[in-house]
Amino acid sequence: MLPTTNRQILLKARPDGIPLAEHFELVASPLPALQPGELLVRNDFLSVDPAMRGWVSAVDNYAQPVAIGDVMRSFTAGEVVASNHPGFAVGDYVMGQLGWQEYARTDGSAITRKVVEADLPLSLALGVLGLNGITAYLGLLEVGQPRPGDTVVVSTAAGAVGSAVGQIAQIEDCRAVGIAGGPAKVQLCLEEFGYDAAIDYKAPGFEAALDTACPHGVDVYFDNTAGPISDTVLGRLAVGARVVVCGTASISSWDPWPSGGRVERHLLVKRARMQGFLVFDHARRYEEAVARLAGWVQEGRLRYREDILEGIETAPGSIAGLYRGENLGKRLIRLRHG
Amino acid sequence: MLPTTNRQILLKARPDGIPLAEHFELVASPLPALQPGELLVRNDFLSVDPAMRGWVSAVDNYAQPVAIGDVMRSFTAGEVVASNHPGFAVGDYVMGQLGWQEYARTDGSAITRKVVEADLPLSLALGVLGLNGITAYLGLLEVGQPRPGDTVVVSTAAGAVGSAVGQIAQIEDCRAVGIAGGPAKVQLCLEEFGYDAAIDYKAPGFEAALDTACPHGVDVYFDNTAGPISDTVLGRLAVGARVVVCGTASISSWDPWPSGGRVERHLLVKRARMQGFLVFDHARRYEEAVARLAGWVQEGRLRYREDILEGIETAPGSIAGLYRGENLGKRLIRLRHG
Repeated sequence: MLPTTNRQILLKARPDGIPLAEHFELVASPLPALQPGELLVRNDFLSVDPAMRGWVSAVDNYAQPVAIGDVMRSFTAGEVVASNHPGFAVGDYVMGQLGWQEYARTDGSAITRKVVEADLPLSLALGVLGLNGITAYLGLLEVGQPRPGDTVVVSTAAGAVGSAVGQIAQIEDCRAVGIAGGPAKVQLCLEEFGYDAAIDYKAPGFEAALDTACPHGVDVYFDNTAGPISDTVLGRLAVGARVVVCGTASISSWDPWPSGGRVERHLLVKRARMQGFLVFDHARRYEEAVARLAGWVQEGRLRYREDILEGIETAPGSIAGLYRGENLGKRLIRLRHG
Repeated sequence: MLPTTNRQILLKARPDGIPLAEHFELVASPLPALQPGELLVRNDFLSVDPAMRGWVSAVDNYAQPVAIGDVMRSFTAGEVVASNHPGFAVGDYVMGQLGWQEYARTDGSAITRKVVEADLPLSLALGVLGLNGITAYLGLLEVGQPRPGDTVVVSTAAGAVGSAVGQIAQIEDCRAVGIAGGPAKVQLCLEEFGYDAAIDYKAPGFEAALDTACPHGVDVYFDNTAGPISDTVLGRLAVGARVVVCGTASISSWDPWPSGGRVERHLLVKRARMQGFLVFDHARRYEEAVARLAGWVQEGRLRYREDILEGIETAPGSIAGLYRGENLGKRLIRLRHG
């Protein structure tokens, strides 16, 4: 029996800054019958990502903002439970931009990929084998261009993207230095993700610790923060350094536009490069990236942590927690159906 | 008769910010006989460049600071008047880092290149055929990577580097938009250097004028300023934009480190790149660059302006004037010998 009702999280109001529970509402709605060419996916996991702040912002962005009253945009992983689409069969597992809802109908255009790594947990398709892992892999290799022996510094080093960056840097024979907030995350960096060094930016002596960890300067800086941490790292670039601008987690609002230390002299004196990376520009390389990442996971060379919330009711408040740094690992929501 | 005395400008004190006349002194000193392997150059022109501020600063830089009591570092153009060096003959014209002095002895290592374009004025070897023109050519082509139809925005657009960037952008079939200070420089951009548009950043309505001049955003920004002008331009980047960080003319001091609008979100949303360019990294391409630039000058496609001061006595005060924007064209000092 296919379901006839659906539960969805809608965007109720546009936040000024970080989205809070009050900006969303949970609604039950009828689930119409499939049209020709459509498939129905039962979402088993919903993703919670820092990028969601941008998706609900009216400020200029790389994507249209989610409209008020629309289902919240999200990547999900689930199983095809009905299909009028020749490319998908019942029982296929898929990952795609299917939204914060229990069931999603699509003509296939919202599907990012089929999940073919059947020997690994489905949830990984939203984390280390999802856009987090792909972002780490392609952002580091395409923009960061690490060379053996390079010092690679990673901010939000224990996070879903950062932890993969640090481990891939080591696979590429680089020295990996992680920056994270608080002793629990620093410990995770050292013991779980194997960073050569990990530094608590909230502790006294952050700058001195960074100097000690990077005696020859920073060759690659993979940045997910854009705040004072970056100002500190940018002052320590080596000649020819590459800065991957991947996220801006430490900036709570871009209105008014925040200030920071000017980067021009760092870039000029060190002939360094700073470049924005958006994974969606690189869709043609997803399959290659997932295949390599899955291989490393199976070999035990690429480890991951998950922070799994239970039930769609937890979704509205789940983004703000990311910005409070309360999660240790990739944040997901597991849906309990029926 | 070879000279036996020399007049030199020495660095007397280290400035805090922009070098002023009081930081230098003019001295007369004996000129010893040439040693084996040395040559003697009579400097006919001394160069005055914004980069000199960095050369006399004790702050971390790409070169060792000029020591107190040393001859001020400078590029010069002149004629070989004596030679014990097999690579140089009396009568050769050369350009090199020979310092603010009337005569320079060198073992050849300070010579950047022989000036072989005998049909063009020697002074050009310090401007449009010198490091200014080479910087424009290589910085624009290597880092800016202009494509036909791109909008190329240039700050200090009427200056020695900027004016060449704007003209080379047009030679590369780009739309060139210049930013300069005051109506005289804007007029020079439009009438002498042929920019498609030129904007006075000191006039009201600068941002609106920039919007009008760049309806599809900015594909390449060649920046010599690093100040509020850059903050304004960076908010108008097109997807995939390239920012050439070439100079920081609008920053009077880096101690304390100045702040500006954060660049990370611009770079991320527009997947843009910002990269420092230092011409000295590209010495292997100087001859190629000069040959192409000289060809364009001879064809009348690459125009230039010079601002020539007379006599070595003018040197100490000449740098500060650059930062006041008082020169219309490449600033040089012509030496009158004997």
